[in-house]
Amino acid sequence: MRASPSPPRALVLTGARVVTMDPRRRILDADVWVEAGKIAAVKKRSDRRTVGRSDGKSVIDCSGLILLPGLVQAHVHLCQTLFRGLADDLPLEQWLARRIWPLEAAHTEDSVYWSAMLGAAELLLGGTTAILDMETVRHTGAAFQALEAIGLRATAGKCLMDAPSAPPGLREPTDHALQEAADLCATWHGRANGRLRWCYAPRFAPSSTGQLLRAVSDLAEKADAVIHTHAAETPVELETVKRETGNDELAYLDSVGIAGPRTALAHCVWVDGEGIRRLARQQTNVVHCPSSNLKLGSGIAPIPEMLAAGCRVALGADGAPCNNRLDAFTELRLAALVQKPRLGPDALPAGQALELATLGGARALGLAGEIGTIEPGKRADLLVLDLSGPHAQPEGADLISRIVYSARASDVCHVIVDGKLVVKDGRLRMADYSEIRREANRWARRLRKAIEV
Amino acid sequence: MRASPSPPRALVLTGARVVTMDPRRRILDADVWVEAGKIAAVKKRSDRRTVGRSDGKSVIDCSGLILLPGLVQAHVHLCQTLFRGLADDLPLEQWLARRIWPLEAAHTEDSVYWSAMLGAAELLLGGTTAILDMETVRHTGAAFQALEAIGLRATAGKCLMDAPSAPPGLREPTDHALQEAADLCATWHGRANGRLRWCYAPRFAPSSTGQLLRAVSDLAEKADAVIHTHAAETPVELETVKRETGNDELAYLDSVGIAGPRTALAHCVWVDGEGIRRLARQQTNVVHCPSSNLKLGSGIAPIPEMLAAGCRVALGADGAPCNNRLDAFTELRLAALVQKPRLGPDALPAGQALELATLGGARALGLAGEIGTIEPGKRADLLVLDLSGPHAQPEGADLISRIVYSARASDVCHVIVDGKLVVKDGRLRMADYSEIRREANRWARRLRKAIEV
Repeated sequence: MRASPSPPRALVLTGARVVTMDPRRRILDADVWVEAGKIAAVKKRSDRRTVGRSDGKSVIDCSGLILLPGLVQAHVHLCQTLFRGLADDLPLEQWLARRIWPLEAAHTEDSVYWSAMLGAAELLLGGTTAILDMETVRHTGAAFQALEAIGLRATAGKCLMDAPSAPPGLREPTDHALQEAADLCATWHGRANGRLRWCYAPRFAPSSTGQLLRAVSDLAEKADAVIHTHAAETPVELETVKRETGNDELAYLDSVGIAGPRTALAHCVWVDGEGIRRLARQQTNVVHCPSSNLKLGSGIAPIPEMLAAGCRVALGADGAPCNNRLDAFTELRLAALVQKPRLGPDALPAGQALELATLGGARALGLAGEIGTIEPGKRADLLVLDLSGPHAQPEGADLISRIVYSARASDVCHVIVDGKLVVKDGRLRMADYSEIRREANRWARRLRKAIEV
Repeated sequence: MRASPSPPRALVLTGARVVTMDPRRRILDADVWVEAGKIAAVKKRSDRRTVGRSDGKSVIDCSGLILLPGLVQAHVHLCQTLFRGLADDLPLEQWLARRIWPLEAAHTEDSVYWSAMLGAAELLLGGTTAILDMETVRHTGAAFQALEAIGLRATAGKCLMDAPSAPPGLREPTDHALQEAADLCATWHGRANGRLRWCYAPRFAPSSTGQLLRAVSDLAEKADAVIHTHAAETPVELETVKRETGNDELAYLDSVGIAGPRTALAHCVWVDGEGIRRLARQQTNVVHCPSSNLKLGSGIAPIPEMLAAGCRVALGADGAPCNNRLDAFTELRLAALVQKPRLGPDALPAGQALELATLGGARALGLAGEIGTIEPGKRADLLVLDLSGPHAQPEGADLISRIVYSARASDVCHVIVDGKLVVKDGRLRMADYSEIRREANRWARRLRKAIEV
């Protein structure tokens, strides 16, 4: 299934309460006009009849609904969606060695495609409009094909592993890995009207050589691409890097060029005050994955301290097997809750959590000028939420509190990405979910058989 | 709106995968027959035509769906549902003094009724079939009326506060409080075919005199009623009890008769090894409220240690303003996740979490012989779940993992309480949600005005 190449029709979303996330954090009763994939205007409620007559425009009645910038998840592994529920209750190192790496090595082009489709379906239906994705070593083109078809905004990259300690089934010669990455970048970076972008994605310091990391830094700069990797997830990882390089992990990554606004580091759980100052100084993006950090027993990242120091922070669900959801609302709420026993109930209030999933995500994807807020000129990545269910009542309470603490993925009605309506009334419009479900299960069975889980 | 007095029709639920939670934790492909409010049989898949012809039986086709025992939440405050979102980001003591107590004091009979209806609607639609509820000081009869109408199984009680330090707007003379409690017990305990039960609910040790607590212990024993209170939620609470009684809180509660299988203690976050041994020895029910304990910054209760010691543990959402959901699936997942950074990723695995929300809840309500499993002879409190959405795929993974880590309240299709279909296709059958929403908002506005929030 391929996305239609025709330009999306102009849209008007009328009657919603609009959480703009603009610099003044305005919440407006306004209509949002979308043209050529962009937000053309956010203006006072129109006369319905005028809107109705607007030539060729599609009008979406959002009366009583909430309009938000599409949510951004800046760390996911779509290739792992088919592994959901196959790796519960294991620590990171065993989780990788016993389950995730053998399963990734068993992937085929088809299984990568349907894993991405299943993950993207869940993400879109739950209001996530943009992701930073790390695929496995092989078949990354198939993931891009899926993302092109289903309509999600994605910056994705093939996983790079060349160190002797990397798992043999996934390790590649440095040159080979870099060449395939550069080729994929040439094919996919900027495709689909810029909706698809490439990232360089070395897995993490212990599985990559310094040579590879240095080359990634140069290649990413040349291509104007994001660097996407993991850092400081567990003490074992920190000790490994210290032993092998003599350096603290963040300092080591910096020494090989993996730092700064172009870089997104997933996790950063085990970072001390000096590390936080370093991340803030560099303006490196931290991607907080609260569910994953709990489920793998990694810990609780010092996010309020990072925000106070001026760090850039985004949110992500990580892969399905360490969550086991890909649900931005779950991560939003948990990000706000999990800091409070340590720092008090006013730590990471609702408004700050919502910033991580919008502005923070946009920055991590290098798209702060294009997504993350509802302002004229931005790409039209939008989410329409129905908070009329009992779990989000009464209505008089603070709207941001209702969104962060009460709302859930199933409250999402409509989703627009790059000006195109990709979810309508809670259903995918660019892909057939019954086909995704059937094929995802078929390929998941084959993968399980291949590794005898 | 009152529940119809007619006996529920016999039902057959066909074609589901049945998570029995029986002593062997069997998961069966079976049909479940319901008669006179009870589970009459759990038997191998019937011939559909035979079932179809069964005289006077209603057949619910559950092909492809999951059938579970109804989930139990053993600590909620339905009277606080209208306060959702009005008390975010405050520590417990301020949360109580500045918001919750003034709002509770402002409640009227109508506002208590619609607060209970709104909370019960959310609970039923999310698969919770039974609760242990603490109301406010006044108008508890109105909450029972709501519970009678909407069809939830509930053990509820008026909050008792008679100590000088209790808030003046809610403090009552000891005799008056006990007399009203005994009168309400006489009216409501065992009503609606036993679906409604009374509990004695002193708020917590610092707001109750020893005289009241001792009387509660006697009255509860005489009436065969549950005692429902809070304990060991914050260090401030522990210090207060220590200062006022010279005793550790759990030891003090035991000395006034608040302990043992008849007692449910919400929270128990700040309990040491000696306290855990005490709770296990007494077989006192601990009600774990992981979201609430995070949101109020209270901490993380040592649940795995309690389970290892043989304690009885149930789950609960607590009141809407400290969560802000009343969602058993949120609590299930969080209970399993929140222990892992402290104790490792194999702490509180999915199966154990599900036991807390079924068997543990049944025990806390004193109903272990009647609910919590799907076995012939038990009351028919059942939940039908649709896990076909992308967030719970693929299907080959462990079913309990899919339920605990991936499923969400919106996956609930049908809910049966006491043999009666109270939710069908995700809609309430015994109450009109649009009326609940309208009235709940009306009374929430009045309460906010009364305290000028």
